[in-house]
Amino acid sequence: MESKKKEIKKNIVKAVNKVREINPMAGSITNTVTINFVANAQLAVGGSAAMVYLPDEGEDLARLGDAMYINVGTMFPVYEETLEHVARILFEIGKPWVLDPVAIGIGDLRTKVLKEFKNYKPNIIRGNASEIIALAGLWELDGGRRNSKVRGVDSTNLVGEAKNAAIELAKYTGGAVAVSGAIDLVTDGKLLVYSKGGSHFMEKITGAGCSLGGVMGIYLTVTDPFTAAIVGTQIYNLAGRLAEMRSQGTGSFHVHFLDELYKASGQDIANNYFEIKEV
Amino acid sequence: MESKKKEIKKNIVKAVNKVREINPMAGSITNTVTINFVANAQLAVGGSAAMVYLPDEGEDLARLGDAMYINVGTMFPVYEETLEHVARILFEIGKPWVLDPVAIGIGDLRTKVLKEFKNYKPNIIRGNASEIIALAGLWELDGGRRNSKVRGVDSTNLVGEAKNAAIELAKYTGGAVAVSGAIDLVTDGKLLVYSKGGSHFMEKITGAGCSLGGVMGIYLTVTDPFTAAIVGTQIYNLAGRLAEMRSQGTGSFHVHFLDELYKASGQDIANNYFEIKEV
Amino acid sequence: MESKKKEIKKNIVKAVNKVREINPMAGSITNTVTINFVANAQLAVGGSAAMVYLPDEGEDLARLGDAMYINVGTMFPVYEETLEHVARILFEIGKPWVLDPVAIGIGDLRTKVLKEFKNYKPNIIRGNASEIIALAGLWELDGGRRNSKVRGVDSTNLVGEAKNAAIELAKYTGGAVAVSGAIDLVTDGKLLVYSKGGSHFMEKITGAGCSLGGVMGIYLTVTDPFTAAIVGTQIYNLAGRLAEMRSQGTGSFHVHFLDELYKASGQDIANNYFEIKEV
Repeated sequence: MESKKKEIKKNIVKAVNKVREINPMAGSITNTVTINFVANAQLAVGGSAAMVYLPDEGEDLARLGDAMYINVGTMFPVYEETLEHVARILFEIGKPWVLDPVAIGIGDLRTKVLKEFKNYKPNIIRGNASEIIALAGLWELDGGRRNSKVRGVDSTNLVGEAKNAAIELAKYTGGAVAVSGAIDLVTDGKLLVYSKGGSHFMEKITGAGCSLGGVMGIYLTVTDPFTAAIVGTQIYNLAGRLAEMRSQGTGSFHVHFLDELYKASGQDIANNYFEIKEV
Repeated sequence: MESKKKEIKKNIVKAVNKVREINPMAGSITNTVTINFVANAQLAVGGSAAMVYLPDEGEDLARLGDAMYINVGTMFPVYEETLEHVARILFEIGKPWVLDPVAIGIGDLRTKVLKEFKNYKPNIIRGNASEIIALAGLWELDGGRRNSKVRGVDSTNLVGEAKNAAIELAKYTGGAVAVSGAIDLVTDGKLLVYSKGGSHFMEKITGAGCSLGGVMGIYLTVTDPFTAAIVGTQIYNLAGRLAEMRSQGTGSFHVHFLDELYKASGQDIANNYFEIKEV
Repeated sequence: MESKKKEIKKNIVKAVNKVREINPMAGSITNTVTINFVANAQLAVGGSAAMVYLPDEGEDLARLGDAMYINVGTMFPVYEETLEHVARILFEIGKPWVLDPVAIGIGDLRTKVLKEFKNYKPNIIRGNASEIIALAGLWELDGGRRNSKVRGVDSTNLVGEAKNAAIELAKYTGGAVAVSGAIDLVTDGKLLVYSKGGSHFMEKITGAGCSLGGVMGIYLTVTDPFTAAIVGTQIYNLAGRLAEMRSQGTGSFHVHFLDELYKASGQDIANNYFEIKEV
């Protein structure tokens, strides 16, 4: 495992530096609550952002960018057409994408769309424990539970309870799954990476999860899903920990957090505490 | 009145602490301009936020949460269906809700929806003086004026001019009405609470009013409408006053304001200056 | 040119002070990514903001305000009706407006609407070099190129390459065109104003361009298009330069930038470095 860890660290540094060098674009279809935070986080780590709602615009971004981020946080009527269309295009042309199944269980259209996404195998799935369990349930995979309790956008489950669902989702998609919590979990179905850090403030600002998904989308333009999910998780844990030290409340935390995303070096991100286990 | 004041202070402390203890969720249907600020303010005071646009998702939030916040600031076509549906559900199942009649008078759909809301008696109505006068006018209550001049989202009237409209609205709904201005007014139709504080910066950032409505929604999950409207008004006046001292402009004010919302103690909120009069 | 420069400086001071004095309203139809930043920037310079999506609400704002800002960054289905309708009203009643052709080339509706806008001659057109070249191309003016490469919302061209397109657009509309870049260009088709300053951080936060367009809309309520475009460009270059000195990353830059917009005096804005050339 030590050599594996070394390899992961090397890949982290490489991905972080590559993004800062080439300023890659990952388009997004995301919710209106945290859309600004998603874009600013993507820019802070060195990427480029663009957001749309319409089907053909989503397709254009899918083709223009090197990866995409889809977050179903606030559904619009036009999403009935947009979301499946764009996911299908991404799958067909082999562009990697990140799915954030926010608020899964709320509303019929969200459920329908999330079910359809099973066909288009998102390369990274990111959510809190309840969302990951619910998605595995919706896709009828082991470890899932259709009635996983998601209270609006909050998790009522712990990361450990979502381990099996995460593994099964990763095995099914062939990509990676990231579960946010006190200690974050990233898995590719074979390895489990546990990453520490972050801040209690991250649950007290809106969009820590959404913007993490968007940032994973940026790293996904330059590396494989497992590495991209780990880099995103690690930079968030590092930036959260550092930002908390300088913050007096949630307003200043948000500001310092973006500053830390902007400043974080590849080496510091790689050195943020994590450990690896086999499934 | 001194014993009444003491009772109100006690209720303030209780509501503030209760929210921090149980992290209650109040869903929102709100405008896209300040939606992030609404969510972050709700989280800063200890609540949980979730925002949607579609009819069935609004209904789900109405049932899941313990109160709801509806702000008509930016209308979407789907709101023709969503807004009346959700308000009716809230009324039928007895879930309390806050109405923010932003920009009343702009557009036909907004007018139609705000008129329909009369049937579903929002438990708290929050607005600036012009909006409160215009809503009472639209509902054909005393003190109202259909042609109250609202310039976009700004008030052209003073709080004092809206006193009668506020009282009549509160009497009609059986809830509370909060009028934002230099000195804020909260009434339940019997008592008038005048609360002081805040900052001149609050008119120079967008969403001070909207996020206040969202925060009242959070307090409404744990207490009666009159108390919830007072707590919201008091914490805003306290946080605004403290944030101004540390701010060099509107950017830093916004940051410090969220920090102060996060830090404010129940006792400090109760001790912010207010006075009570009988109607 | 020295007397021309003196005259421009005098006009800058006059516009800045007038806005702070009368708090004019410029309504917006703008994208959901940076809508909050647009509103807060407009408020910081002393204006008033209101945002809508529906056709009749857009018309109401066009009539209520003294200028308008239209940004096509995130298209909604209802924009098929809204955008042409509002632009036509503005043109017919002679209310000046600012067009921001963000992400031109993405999607059919955006292209259709931007083509229609040719009939309604926006008084200020603001964009990066690629957008200005692409708009001139779409309108079949000299200096334009239909296939100008816009990567999502980023520019892949330099300001100098857009000079002819900017001049031709300004000649066609009879208004002003502003091209954002390392050194910004503003032209009325006869004179070229080059304005320096800003910050490398402005490309690392989302909405520097959008909010600049919104701020130009505010100045357009009190002065001619050429002056309004210059004032906006100058205050952004001043505020960006000052904010950068106090910032440790993109989060704090955003905060300080709004503070500097709020604090900037007319004289300082006029004294920010610029030079004039004849076309």
